[in-house]
Amino acid sequence: MSEYSAPLRDMQFILDDLGLLARLQALPGQEEIGSDLAQAILAEAGRFASGVLAPLNSVGDRQGARWNDGAVRTADGWKHAYKQFVEGGWNALSCSPEFGGQGIARLLSAAVEEMWNAANVAFGLCPMLTRGAIEAVELHGSAALKETWLPKLISGEWTGTMNLTEPQAGSDLAAVRSRAERNGDGTYRVFGQKIFITYGEHDLTENIVHLVLARVPGAPEGVKGISLFLVPKVLLDASGKPDARNDVRCVSIEHKLGIHGSPTAVLAFGDRDGAVGWLVGEENRGLEYMFSMMNAARFSVGIEGIGLSERAYQRALAYARERRQGGELGSASREKVAILRHPDVRRMLLSMKSRVEAMRALGYEVALAMDVASGHPDPEVRREQQAFVDLLIPVVKAWSTENAIDIASLGVQIHGGMGFIEETGAAQHLRDARITTIYEGTTGIQANDLVGRKIARDRGVAALALIARMRDCARRLPRSEDALEPIGHALDLALDALERGVSCIVQRHDQQPREIALGAVPFLQLFGLVAGGWQLASSALVAWQRLQDGTGDPAFYRAKLHTAQFYACHLLPTADGLARVLTDGGESALEMDDESF
Amino acid sequence: MSEYSAPLRDMQFILDDLGLLARLQALPGQEEIGSDLAQAILAEAGRFASGVLAPLNSVGDRQGARWNDGAVRTADGWKHAYKQFVEGGWNALSCSPEFGGQGIARLLSAAVEEMWNAANVAFGLCPMLTRGAIEAVELHGSAALKETWLPKLISGEWTGTMNLTEPQAGSDLAAVRSRAERNGDGTYRVFGQKIFITYGEHDLTENIVHLVLARVPGAPEGVKGISLFLVPKVLLDASGKPDARNDVRCVSIEHKLGIHGSPTAVLAFGDRDGAVGWLVGEENRGLEYMFSMMNAARFSVGIEGIGLSERAYQRALAYARERRQGGELGSASREKVAILRHPDVRRMLLSMKSRVEAMRALGYEVALAMDVASGHPDPEVRREQQAFVDLLIPVVKAWSTENAIDIASLGVQIHGGMGFIEETGAAQHLRDARITTIYEGTTGIQANDLVGRKIARDRGVAALALIARMRDCARRLPRSEDALEPIGHALDLALDALERGVSCIVQRHDQQPREIALGAVPFLQLFGLVAGGWQLASSALVAWQRLQDGTGDPAFYRAKLHTAQFYACHLLPTADGLARVLTDGGESALEMDDESF
Repeated sequence: MSEYSAPLRDMQFILDDLGLLARLQALPGQEEIGSDLAQAILAEAGRFASGVLAPLNSVGDRQGARWNDGAVRTADGWKHAYKQFVEGGWNALSCSPEFGGQGIARLLSAAVEEMWNAANVAFGLCPMLTRGAIEAVELHGSAALKETWLPKLISGEWTGTMNLTEPQAGSDLAAVRSRAERNGDGTYRVFGQKIFITYGEHDLTENIVHLVLARVPGAPEGVKGISLFLVPKVLLDASGKPDARNDVRCVSIEHKLGIHGSPTAVLAFGDRDGAVGWLVGEENRGLEYMFSMMNAARFSVGIEGIGLSERAYQRALAYARERRQGGELGSASREKVAILRHPDVRRMLLSMKSRVEAMRALGYEVALAMDVASGHPDPEVRREQQAFVDLLIPVVKAWSTENAIDIASLGVQIHGGMGFIEETGAAQHLRDARITTIYEGTTGIQANDLVGRKIARDRGVAALALIARMRDCARRLPRSEDALEPIGHALDLALDALERGVSCIVQRHDQQPREIALGAVPFLQLFGLVAGGWQLASSALVAWQRLQDGTGDPAFYRAKLHTAQFYACHLLPTADGLARVLTDGGESALEMDDESF
Repeated sequence: MSEYSAPLRDMQFILDDLGLLARLQALPGQEEIGSDLAQAILAEAGRFASGVLAPLNSVGDRQGARWNDGAVRTADGWKHAYKQFVEGGWNALSCSPEFGGQGIARLLSAAVEEMWNAANVAFGLCPMLTRGAIEAVELHGSAALKETWLPKLISGEWTGTMNLTEPQAGSDLAAVRSRAERNGDGTYRVFGQKIFITYGEHDLTENIVHLVLARVPGAPEGVKGISLFLVPKVLLDASGKPDARNDVRCVSIEHKLGIHGSPTAVLAFGDRDGAVGWLVGEENRGLEYMFSMMNAARFSVGIEGIGLSERAYQRALAYARERRQGGELGSASREKVAILRHPDVRRMLLSMKSRVEAMRALGYEVALAMDVASGHPDPEVRREQQAFVDLLIPVVKAWSTENAIDIASLGVQIHGGMGFIEETGAAQHLRDARITTIYEGTTGIQANDLVGRKIARDRGVAALALIARMRDCARRLPRSEDALEPIGHALDLALDALERGVSCIVQRHDQQPREIALGAVPFLQLFGLVAGGWQLASSALVAWQRLQDGTGDPAFYRAKLHTAQFYACHLLPTADGLARVLTDGGESALEMDDESF
């Protein structure tokens, strides 16, 4: 049985060797986050993830959350684990110190989040959704709302949810029909049915704070007539203690392919006289507020993809070391070897490992950019870094999650027949990962965001700036070195392909949005692939320098070189084909009659 | 709710327009299989698949097969469906008329098999395994064994199983430890535990005929000391009627990711005094017999991939027509449209559809080649066609099943959040498909077979002969026609890539088997991709000719052109990258220290 072990050494490599921690320390107020403190936080989080959350992962999968007459019971042990999570201060890690949070930089909290998701993604969803609710109230709520709700949300004493989806309004939130009537005293009565509400009902805490999209009377049609409300499960008494049940009820929970431990609720608001709610911000600006939080949520789902991938890799690797089958290829000996010795198994493992490391390095780079974009004294630097964040969010979200599905599927494959047996655990990762390319905006939606809002709108400026930065990295790899030459060469070719893709979008998007949309997902995959290649090229350069200098553990740095070489020679060669799909994909998919599909 | 409808029109296109039926009719004894008769068989099978098997698919998934004290009960309705299947004569379709079969050509029975698998792959496994047992007895059994067992296996009154795997012997059958002691009267007593036995125990029939690999006393070590035995669940009395239980017991069945309706048994042979068995063929030649049947079984799993893909496509298409969400991209209208109108959904659907059609055309081409290889009067033609079959079997098996996983996953994606809800049905296809790249030889094993036995061993002769045939097809596409030019161009480039791959294998395999093995799976994917492109190019040429001639349904033929164009411009461009992985993939995966993974 494989145990989860937080990849602290790889995380440290990114923070220290790739210099991300040093860049964080250069920000005002972050001077004291030294390597030792960072390592201490990550090690402690790793212990909690391995010791408390990981053992509950299969329990949650097997038992699932269970609905009974409107109440939802989480799986055995989950309530206690959540209590420990809150008591350990983990919920408050990245939240604002003003209301009790610890204000840890996004760079570090991203690493911690990766661990929660690797250990138990169904559990990790609960604090992730709470963070979303916190952010909504913090950014847009009144002082009174903040004082009432933030301290308990930040401590984790209460959890939060995001209520967007309705049966007819999924990707298209303009179709939201839930409504909110003004009571005249500043409160509202909310009516409507919401579906797919993660942790919409559960037994972990005494109260749940729902953030709900609904329309007020007289609101304009479409996206500009949606308001955001805070609707608690339990109303508070005068002293702020949970008192009477509000008019919101969990009608059912879904029977899902994966993340069984996480209850996905259908919530009915206002079946009696309306659920009491408080407006967040101003009327009719709810969707705008949602969008302002969406970057954070999408980034977090990208981190889910990284965590799930790491976990699937660790499990497959443990099996590949332990399972002996067949003799060594090309050897006369008939002695059985661990399947790790078989070239195709090594190929699959390195395909997993190299992508995990590429996704992680890219994800943390974006996390750091969030810290810089909010904390740097120079507004020009802040603007630049925010543009980088905005450009990369759809890539981190969609590329990391598409990879996660493929990586979890390879994890099943490495287990052979045992991978198909549920008790092995590999199949759960695939089932769990399968939702990550769908929620918080499907891969198609991320790709349209990347191509339309993030590239066409600024005529490719942010994308070309990043390409220049990546080319600079490629140039720094000495081509005279055999270990680095193939990496630099492959990255150069892949960057050419990416640049052709960006040019194509800039030139054609406005006139031919439907044609460009046909190639948007392949282009997003190309973008992620190349950005990951950039990160691994940086890793390889640093590793090579360490080996030259004779500092650190040579086996570790040699592995970094081999991992980057594998990515360069096995994964980057697909870049050109992906670019061609965008630039020369043709219009057959648009020309095909609807009836002829 | 989407219903399965057999793709009769597409099947007819392959049989009639692509000329496969005419080539079948040219064989001795097949003159009478006209288009009308073929269509009648397929239509009748389609009715059975849609009407009887498909409605039981989700029942089987939900209830699963249930074990109780050694007995296994199939899901509600399955027993009755199996009875109808047998009564309809479906089990005997492709079997030898000598023992009651109908001797239908492989070309047609492949199409029928596709339907069983599309409707209900967990059900389809039962007759598939029975066919394997039939083939083993027919090819290698004594006259007495044939007379005793074949009629009831062919009618389907009894079912058959293949007992290969043991806990320590999966991909590596040399490690089989089950043993068989000679009784002195020509029978044996078999002892040992077998795992992963599909339909190893069930309530569909009165008897089950197990084909079991085991070692006789004094047998050589390894693969050359394995014998094949026929071990019935129930021994027969003198009149040939099932009488006393043999010493074989179902210890448990597995809890699996998918194909829940199909019981996967752990069987204990000889817990008391040994399970009575009869030797099939000669002692120590069991593995050789298994290999002679393996082509058929691997081909059938490829057909499973095609059936599952078709079903996933039909379900996703039905949802995409029905679900309205968002406005038309590039249109000022805010009216909601079916998601089929969204470019990215069209891209996903055509990625599914084009591959389904490519896999089907290739699969049926191989099925026809099996018919020619066994029925053509000219031994040279038989030899050539057998070489084609041998070359393509690993491709049909692995490429179709790897595609099936991806296609079923795209099917989930098209459903958005609903795809993750089990009741929708899309997730089941993904869960079911996930086994197909594992059983009957993993994708890695297929790739090694392709690269080693099928290409390196004959120095690429069969592969180059196929490439020449594909180049000839590419040449026949008139480049002056806008509709065909991109198809021919893309196929040319993809063929160049494939030819580079074949040359690389021929040149380097013997000296560098481990290096070549690192690129074997990407090369197999390349092979399937190009062979599928060849089939769609043929389809496009025929469709274009029909449109020129003004014969047939123009909408149908235009769709064939668009589908081939999509495949050429969205899928074939990855060919070059796949070839590069083989030719320039480097050795980093071999050089990496085992401890550093």
